[in-house]
Amino acid sequence: PPSTSAAHRGRWDREALETVLRRRFFFAPAFEIYGGVAGLYDYGPPGCAMKNNLVQMWRQHFVLEEGMLELDGPALTPDPVLRTSGHVDKFQDWMVRDTETAACYRADHLLRDALQARLDDPTLSAARSSAERQDMERTLAHVDELTADELAAALRRFDVRAPDTNNPVSAPYSFNLMFQTQIGPTGTIPAYLRPETAQGMFVNFRRLLDYVGGRMPFACAQIGLAYRNEISPRAGLLRVREFMQAEIEHFVHPERKAHPRFHRVADDVLVLFPRDRQSAPPDSERHRVVRMRAGEAVAAAVIDNQTLAYFMARTQSFAYSIGLRPEHLRFRQHLANEMAHYARDCWDLEVETSYGWIECVGLADRACYDLKAHSEVSKVELVALDKYDEPRTVQVFEAVPVKRVIGQRFKRDARRLIELLQTRLDEVAKLRLHEALQTRGSHELDGFTITPDMVEFQRVSRTVHSETYYPSVIEPSFGIGRLLYCVLEHAFYVRAGDDEARAVLRLMPAMAPLKCAVLPLSKNEVFDPLLQRVSTALTRAAISFRADDSNASIGKRYARADELGIPFGITIDFDSVSDATVTVRERDSMQQLRGDIDAVVQAIADMCRGEAHWKSVSEERERYGLQRFEGQQTTHG
Amino acid sequence: PPSTSAAHRGRWDREALETVLRRRFFFAPAFEIYGGVAGLYDYGPPGCAMKNNLVQMWRQHFVLEEGMLELDGPALTPDPVLRTSGHVDKFQDWMVRDTETAACYRADHLLRDALQARLDDPTLSAARSSAERQDMERTLAHVDELTADELAAALRRFDVRAPDTNNPVSAPYSFNLMFQTQIGPTGTIPAYLRPETAQGMFVNFRRLLDYVGGRMPFACAQIGLAYRNEISPRAGLLRVREFMQAEIEHFVHPERKAHPRFHRVADDVLVLFPRDRQSAPPDSERHRVVRMRAGEAVAAAVIDNQTLAYFMARTQSFAYSIGLRPEHLRFRQHLANEMAHYARDCWDLEVETSYGWIECVGLADRACYDLKAHSEVSKVELVALDKYDEPRTVQVFEAVPVKRVIGQRFKRDARRLIELLQTRLDEVAKLRLHEALQTRGSHELDGFTITPDMVEFQRVSRTVHSETYYPSVIEPSFGIGRLLYCVLEHAFYVRAGDDEARAVLRLMPAMAPLKCAVLPLSKNEVFDPLLQRVSTALTRAAISFRADDSNASIGKRYARADELGIPFGITIDFDSVSDATVTVRERDSMQQLRGDIDAVVQAIADMCRGEAHWKSVSEERERYGLQRFEGQQTTHG
Repeated sequence: PPSTSAAHRGRWDREALETVLRRRFFFAPAFEIYGGVAGLYDYGPPGCAMKNNLVQMWRQHFVLEEGMLELDGPALTPDPVLRTSGHVDKFQDWMVRDTETAACYRADHLLRDALQARLDDPTLSAARSSAERQDMERTLAHVDELTADELAAALRRFDVRAPDTNNPVSAPYSFNLMFQTQIGPTGTIPAYLRPETAQGMFVNFRRLLDYVGGRMPFACAQIGLAYRNEISPRAGLLRVREFMQAEIEHFVHPERKAHPRFHRVADDVLVLFPRDRQSAPPDSERHRVVRMRAGEAVAAAVIDNQTLAYFMARTQSFAYSIGLRPEHLRFRQHLANEMAHYARDCWDLEVETSYGWIECVGLADRACYDLKAHSEVSKVELVALDKYDEPRTVQVFEAVPVKRVIGQRFKRDARRLIELLQTRLDEVAKLRLHEALQTRGSHELDGFTITPDMVEFQRVSRTVHSETYYPSVIEPSFGIGRLLYCVLEHAFYVRAGDDEARAVLRLMPAMAPLKCAVLPLSKNEVFDPLLQRVSTALTRAAISFRADDSNASIGKRYARADELGIPFGITIDFDSVSDATVTVRERDSMQQLRGDIDAVVQAIADMCRGEAHWKSVSEERERYGLQRFEGQQTTHG
Repeated sequence: PPSTSAAHRGRWDREALETVLRRRFFFAPAFEIYGGVAGLYDYGPPGCAMKNNLVQMWRQHFVLEEGMLELDGPALTPDPVLRTSGHVDKFQDWMVRDTETAACYRADHLLRDALQARLDDPTLSAARSSAERQDMERTLAHVDELTADELAAALRRFDVRAPDTNNPVSAPYSFNLMFQTQIGPTGTIPAYLRPETAQGMFVNFRRLLDYVGGRMPFACAQIGLAYRNEISPRAGLLRVREFMQAEIEHFVHPERKAHPRFHRVADDVLVLFPRDRQSAPPDSERHRVVRMRAGEAVAAAVIDNQTLAYFMARTQSFAYSIGLRPEHLRFRQHLANEMAHYARDCWDLEVETSYGWIECVGLADRACYDLKAHSEVSKVELVALDKYDEPRTVQVFEAVPVKRVIGQRFKRDARRLIELLQTRLDEVAKLRLHEALQTRGSHELDGFTITPDMVEFQRVSRTVHSETYYPSVIEPSFGIGRLLYCVLEHAFYVRAGDDEARAVLRLMPAMAPLKCAVLPLSKNEVFDPLLQRVSTALTRAAISFRADDSNASIGKRYARADELGIPFGITIDFDSVSDATVTVRERDSMQQLRGDIDAVVQAIADMCRGEAHWKSVSEERERYGLQRFEGQQTTHG
């Protein structure tokens, strides 16, 4: 078996993989005949099949097995939704422009790179005053926190220039990362392509809560496209401008984040890289991941709560099920300054690839920020109802209008004041009115001059059966394209062939774009009836396959199937014609078994459903009606 | 069974359906808490599940069973692609604006409605000169063909005003129906959201042809979102601004449109409404659909070719399989003026609903227009290679440079002229050069003065083994949201219940959002172990279900399930507790069978896979280990 340690994943490996992915059209730059557009990709037939498999497996693992709701809303999103969420104002980068060529750079990257280069340059260091050096170091440490004005001042103070031309750069200006457009003929509805699918679920919270009959907690998922106008997309599928997300919003009472199925994952061992360990000196013993059971991590408060830990464990088992390699996975906790101010705790599932550690899934406890923000702006209360087991008694302060007095004084307007006193004053307003009437003898309210004879105040006990609250949101968010690319990197290896090194994708059967290759030994019509029988049997078993009856040698045709990650190959030879048996070859071991068509198809079906593996089928070959096959296929009749 | 004829689908029916669809969150206007945006919808849990089922069934019926390729490309599309396809210039409507309120109207609709109203009004007709009346009638007949200037002139001549205010309207201006945006930080890449998924397949033609090893014909499918900035979206899911398409591009030699599997559908009876029948007088015998076998329709040249007819037949069987009712389906041929100038033949699958006949699938023979247009602009030849069975001999006219003479005359530049003569002259250029040298004794070419001694002309025979050609494209294009809505209308009926009329969705099991409801007779923990056993058995059989253990009566819970279109309900009663048998109820007949859990689940699994129906299961109940159940469930232990 090939080495899979990160140390062995070199530049060469990635190039070999990319050659295969492009040549076999897993994916490729979109619109290439017109020169292409950075950050936009087409998935060709095998990539598209794998993406469909990945989405289907995700839906099975999360939506169906967890009994989640699923929503499917538009990518086009009107301005107010994304203004409330903060994206219109904050989903942006500061840019500067080369004053002569108009080339664009991210201001913070430019400043950081320039300062780092100067501090690293020994010839410059010598000639620099200690004060200047300290200024550079201090600025560098806080690049992320600089305001636009501070950024501008720093770029001027250190005379930072465009790296490609050495021209001066403009003052920083903000660049929003959302794609903007207009809805309708008059262009009066500004809109964006959503930068995440999450908001569509928040604005539907009431309908979703109705759908589950008001029962909390519950989770909703959405699988769909999101868009980010990246400034300089690169790294293949890892940073693109249009990408598929699969997001879950788990709505839960803010103080009750235990999860009813947590016991099922409590003993799962998670690979964690907590905040304090990341902050430890890079070469210290503490600066590395720690393996902990999920239950232990919650008990020790390494992970904030059971629900978050539950989804981390479920995410890890999903990652294993699609073929990501455990030794290249970790959960990295966000540092305090990485998290939004409202977030309670965030962990990223990171996957190690030739590009380094890549964030593929974000798991965040976003508290009740989103539902609260949308409630405040839309004036629609996105709240859940908590029915108490036992009614509770609470003390409330009441302002009871003296209707007779008010009626005499205000005549036709009396009703309005009575209603105002009865329903529109909160606790604080009532206390303020009470105090004002006691100390000053009158109070102005909404144009009314109120005197003490108009209101009686009393403290009363009330029996309360329920209360409303803003649910907390725990959000696992998956990048489908990134996961797919990582699966491909982890699956790729090269083995020596008869005449040349051959690329293989060791994909799980469930992820493979096709499950079976069907190969008549040569182009000869004597094989046609058997080819038809094998095809029919595979179709009936819902096993996707590809018949390859080209003139190429059997070895070359196996190699073609290996490159596509097809796990099984059925070969029809001259013995097949006489006894109707065929061989099945497994991609990675290259071992073969032989038996009649139904037996072979049954074994493949079991392996594709994950109910058997090549090893178990080989061991139980007699039960399947199969036998070892180690020779060559007969090449004549 | 309820009436399903179109005559009985009144306003009331649609309102009742829409109430159910909204209340049970099949779909609903998106962003409603912010006032919503016309033409944008959210699919809630049952709608989303049905949409996933529909897409999955489509993929099975077309991509897998036909062995098509599948592509998945971005919706963001750069300007040149859609400029070449004609969308930037022609995918537009002419608009006018109310000069005071700025309200927008489609100019052609406004003119047509105004003329029609005036011609229909008897009081106005009397006072009108016959010349004016003729002008109106002539203009009305040709509204679709008017240029912008003619439209403007007509609106002025007839003094057409804004219908809502009677204000004057502006001159017509063009409104492109694509959503526009910009890619990248400098905003220099104008782009659109694709108005169809087709173009992504055309621009990938070379890669796709490579993928199939150059073998023609082949088909590629794409399922994805498309966008149209409709001027006034309405009619629910039928006219929306963001919608899912499933499109197929079948690439084929322009003169060989026979289909290898046509024999499988040749006897399928298609319901056709051909062009000549549409043109017949509306109340004549000929103005109606005709039923024809697919083979017959091609033989009689009613449908242009086998491949187009093959896809029509496959489309019809797909429509049946998702539950559309045969009596409300027809294929309507495009009239000559409806088709693009390059199209050979077009048919729409239309579905009759409460909105009238709705186009749900378009099937077009687009000839080689698209590949040719993209080849010309991109300079990448999107052609296929036709290898002849036998080599062919063709006559060509050659211009052979006399190298010695050219070398002496032009020295260092000689090579360039020799190459030019050998490779860069087409047939016409060679003939022109030959004639010029004969008649005038010299000819200027690319700065060279050529004389007769420099070139020898000859006619030669060449053996040719292949030629390249632009493939024709046959395009079936499905609107997923429209199909889904039509399925819901065709499935909806209302039946008398115990206390009130109850809505039912008679969905095919494969389309239903959930396959089974599980209903313990009452909220009693004695049922919990059986509920668990039933759940486990259903999960193992991959049957989606919903347990409803609320306090509502069993009848009410059946009604809830019927509204969601859930085809089967398993009820657990007190007898179940003692003998582990349960009942299964079918939604539409409301009949019940009883048997042990495995027998019931097996029957449901067979019906969901389409391998059995309620009737066949009832007849073969003994084989399943089931028996009739006609009483009431026992309501006590």
